[in-house]
Amino acid sequence: MTVQHRPRIVIIGCGFGGLEAAKALRGADVDVTVVDKTNHHLFQPLLYQVATAGLSAPAIAAPVRHLFRKQPNVTTLLGEVSDIDVSARMVRLKDGGELAYEHLIVAAGATHSYFGRDDWAPFAPGLKTLDDAFDIRRRVLLAFEAAERETDPTRRAAGLNFVVIGAGPTGVEMAGTLAEIARHTLPGEFRRIDPASARIVLLEGGPRVLQAMPIDLSQRALEQLHTLGVEVRLNARVVAIDACGLDVLPAHGAVYRIDSSCITWAAGVAASPLGRLLAQSVEVQTDRAGRVVVEPDLSLAGHPSISVVGDLAAAQSYPAGQQPRAVPGVSPAAKQMGRLAAVNVLRRIAGQPTAAFWYRDYGNLATIGRHSAVVDLVLPLGHYKFSGYFAWLFWLFAHVYFLIGFRNRLVVLMDWAWAYWSFARYARVVTGIAPRAHGQPPPASGCPDS
Amino acid sequence: MTVQHRPRIVIIGCGFGGLEAAKALRGADVDVTVVDKTNHHLFQPLLYQVATAGLSAPAIAAPVRHLFRKQPNVTTLLGEVSDIDVSARMVRLKDGGELAYEHLIVAAGATHSYFGRDDWAPFAPGLKTLDDAFDIRRRVLLAFEAAERETDPTRRAAGLNFVVIGAGPTGVEMAGTLAEIARHTLPGEFRRIDPASARIVLLEGGPRVLQAMPIDLSQRALEQLHTLGVEVRLNARVVAIDACGLDVLPAHGAVYRIDSSCITWAAGVAASPLGRLLAQSVEVQTDRAGRVVVEPDLSLAGHPSISVVGDLAAAQSYPAGQQPRAVPGVSPAAKQMGRLAAVNVLRRIAGQPTAAFWYRDYGNLATIGRHSAVVDLVLPLGHYKFSGYFAWLFWLFAHVYFLIGFRNRLVVLMDWAWAYWSFARYARVVTGIAPRAHGQPPPASGCPDS
Repeated sequence: MTVQHRPRIVIIGCGFGGLEAAKALRGADVDVTVVDKTNHHLFQPLLYQVATAGLSAPAIAAPVRHLFRKQPNVTTLLGEVSDIDVSARMVRLKDGGELAYEHLIVAAGATHSYFGRDDWAPFAPGLKTLDDAFDIRRRVLLAFEAAERETDPTRRAAGLNFVVIGAGPTGVEMAGTLAEIARHTLPGEFRRIDPASARIVLLEGGPRVLQAMPIDLSQRALEQLHTLGVEVRLNARVVAIDACGLDVLPAHGAVYRIDSSCITWAAGVAASPLGRLLAQSVEVQTDRAGRVVVEPDLSLAGHPSISVVGDLAAAQSYPAGQQPRAVPGVSPAAKQMGRLAAVNVLRRIAGQPTAAFWYRDYGNLATIGRHSAVVDLVLPLGHYKFSGYFAWLFWLFAHVYFLIGFRNRLVVLMDWAWAYWSFARYARVVTGIAPRAHGQPPPASGCPDS
Repeated sequence: MTVQHRPRIVIIGCGFGGLEAAKALRGADVDVTVVDKTNHHLFQPLLYQVATAGLSAPAIAAPVRHLFRKQPNVTTLLGEVSDIDVSARMVRLKDGGELAYEHLIVAAGATHSYFGRDDWAPFAPGLKTLDDAFDIRRRVLLAFEAAERETDPTRRAAGLNFVVIGAGPTGVEMAGTLAEIARHTLPGEFRRIDPASARIVLLEGGPRVLQAMPIDLSQRALEQLHTLGVEVRLNARVVAIDACGLDVLPAHGAVYRIDSSCITWAAGVAASPLGRLLAQSVEVQTDRAGRVVVEPDLSLAGHPSISVVGDLAAAQSYPAGQQPRAVPGVSPAAKQMGRLAAVNVLRRIAGQPTAAFWYRDYGNLATIGRHSAVVDLVLPLGHYKFSGYFAWLFWLFAHVYFLIGFRNRLVVLMDWAWAYWSFARYARVVTGIAPRAHGQPPPASGCPDS
C-alpha cells in the first residue's frame, strides 16, 4: 500500500535561519519537521548578558515547540543529527530514529573555533550556547569570590585579571560589561578586595576593534572602551593559553604573559561539523571555516533538494544590477537565507524557478556598555553613523524588538530598566559549582606566583 | 603585638537560619563572617517552581553578598567548611583558609535522605538546591521530548509516567504542578503524543498526604490532587528504584512495578553532614536524622560559644507556661532560631543571661495547583482552616511577601500573573543536556519492554 503524503521538509537547526525557514512555511501544504540539539531557540545577540549575569536564561531562550504551537504543519523534535543519507533522502538521529525528506534545509549554524588549538578550550570557553554562558558566568563570579578568600596579594591581583580574546561584537560587549560589573555592580559588596581594581584586557589580533564596522566607528568604540577602563591591545596574537593565564605576541616586541583564571574566547567561528559531513556525502566544497559553498538559490550544486542557510553556508548575495558579494555571518543574513530557502522549496514543489539570494544589509550595531554603542545604519535614504547615548538607546530597542515573543521583550526591558537604575545585575546565581568535566575552572591556587 | 579586635562571629550557611542570624547582628559592634557553599540565598519554598519551569533561578535566589552590601560588619565568603576545630575555635575551609571565631552559629541545613539507599539517588533526584531543580526540570521536559521521538507505543506510554515519592508539601506541589503542565501547558505543542495522557503518580508511605496538616486539610488536599488527575497511593512503600522505574509495596497485596524515567524524591530529609562532624568533636548527641541536640538557648551543652539553628538543630520550643515541644523543620522556625541565636550571642558578649527558644507557630500552608491550596492558620484570635481558591490566593501572597528582595517579589508576581493568564511556563529551558556525571538521566530506550 502506498500512502500519498504531503511533501516532507526537514529543517536541521532552529537558530535564526531554521526558525525563519519554518515560519515561512506556515500554512503551506507540506509536513515540516524541525530538529534541534536543544529545546530552545536562543537569541544569541544577548547571550553575553546571560554570561555577565544581566539576564536569566529564559529571558532570551524560547522553547522551540512553543513557538510552533499554532503552526500545525510543524513537528518539533529534540535530537542530534548523526548522518544525512543523501541517496536515501534520510536524516539519521543519534540514539536512533530517522526522518525521511523530500526537501532538506540545513541550518546547523556555527561553533567557536580555536584555530586548531582545541586544547585551549578548557581554559578559554567561547560563547555560543546557554551552557557556555553559565560556564562564563560561573568563572567571572567565582573569580571575585576566590579573590575575596585569597590571602596572597600577588595571587589576589592575578585573580582579578579578566581577559577577552577577540574584539568583534561579542568580545567588545563582554569586555565592556565586565568593566561595568567591576566598577559599578560589585563595589560595596566586598570587604577584603576592591572589585574596581580588576583589570579587563581585550586582545585583538587585527589592527582595530569591530572590524566589520566603518573605521571611524571602530575608533569611537575604542574610545568608549577606554572610558570604561578596558585595556585594549590591538595587533596582539595569543600564542598559548593554560589554566593560569596566557602568552601574547605583540606586533612589536617579545611575547609577554598575562596571569588570569578567567579568559573568554570570542575570536574564531567555525561552521558546524555537519557541514563537513554533508560535503563528504554530496561532494560539494567547503571553505576554510568549514562552511558549505551553496548555489545562488542556496541549494547544493547537483542536489536541489538540499539547501544550506545561515552561518553554515558560504553564500553570495546577488543584488540586482550589482556584483555578487559574500554574505556576512550575522543574524539578519541567516533569517533572510532561511526565508528564501523555504520559499524556494515551495517554488520547487510548484514547479517554478527558484530565486537567487539577495542580502538586504541594513547595517550593523554593537554596544560597549552603559550609554555607549556604535551604530552603522544603511537605509534607502542614506547611510547613518552614530555613537554614544543615542546609539545605545537605538541598540537597546532594536534588540528588544527582534527578541522572540512578547513576554520576553517585556521581561528584558524591565530587567534592563532595573539594572539601569540600580546598577545591580540580578542573575548573579552560580550553579554547578561542581564543574562540568570539560569546562573545569582552573584551580587558581595551583598557579605559580608570578 | 596584640591587636584588640571586636568579637568575631562566624555563621556557617546562609539559608533562612543563617541569613536571619546575620541580619539580627546589624549594627552590633562585632565582626561577622558568613560562609556558604553557594553564592546565593535560596528561597526553597519556591524551588519546585524552578524544577517545573515556572520560575527562573534568579527569581528565587539572591546573591548573599548583595544582601549584606549595606551591613558593613558582615564579610561574605564562598566556601565549604571541612572542619570545625573547637579547641582552637577555628573553622577550616576546603581548598585552604581558616576562620577564627569567638562565637559560632552553625546553620548548615539539611539535604535529602534516601534512608540508607544512596544508590537510588541517580534515578530519583531530590530537590534541595538549584542544581537539583535544573536536574529535575531537564528530566521532566526531556521525558516529553523523548516520548515525541519514541515509536514504540509501550515505551512511549512508560516515558510519560511521572512518579513523585513522598507527599509532604514539596511532593504535593511537584505532583500538582506536573499534572498542570501535562494537562494545561503542553497540549497543542506535540504532534505525536498527547501530553495530557501523562500519568502522575504520588507515592506516600504514610496513611495521608501533608501529615503535618490537620487531618481534614489532608483530606481536602487529597481531593484537590484527584481533581488535578494525580494518582495518589497512600501506605505505599518504595522497595527498589532503578533507571527504568520502581517497585512499590502496597499496604495490602504484592509488590508491583511502575515504569518511569522521571522519578522525584521528596521523601526523606537528613541533617547536613556537618552535624555529625560537630557532634564528634564536642561529644554532643545527634538524633536519628543526624540533627544536633541543642540546649534550650540553642547552644551546645558545655560549649556555649557554639549554637546550632535551623534544620540542623534538634531543638525544643519552650512556650511560657507550657510543656516544651519539638520544633518542626520549617522555614519560620529556622528564621526564629537564627534570630534568637544571634541575640543570645550579643547577650553573652554583654555578660547577660541567654533566653530559651520559643517557637511561634503561625500555622502551615501548602499549594496543590491552580486555585488549590490548604491553609492552617494559627493566630492569637483563633485557629483558621481553609482550602481552595482563597487558600491559593493566600498561599501566593504569603510566598511573595516572604521572598527576599523587592525586585524578586515583583518578578515572581509578574511571572505568575503571566502563567495564570497564558497557562504557559516560560522557563522551559533545558541546559546541560550532556548531563552531570552523578545525575545522569537513564537511557529510556535501554529499558526492557514491560
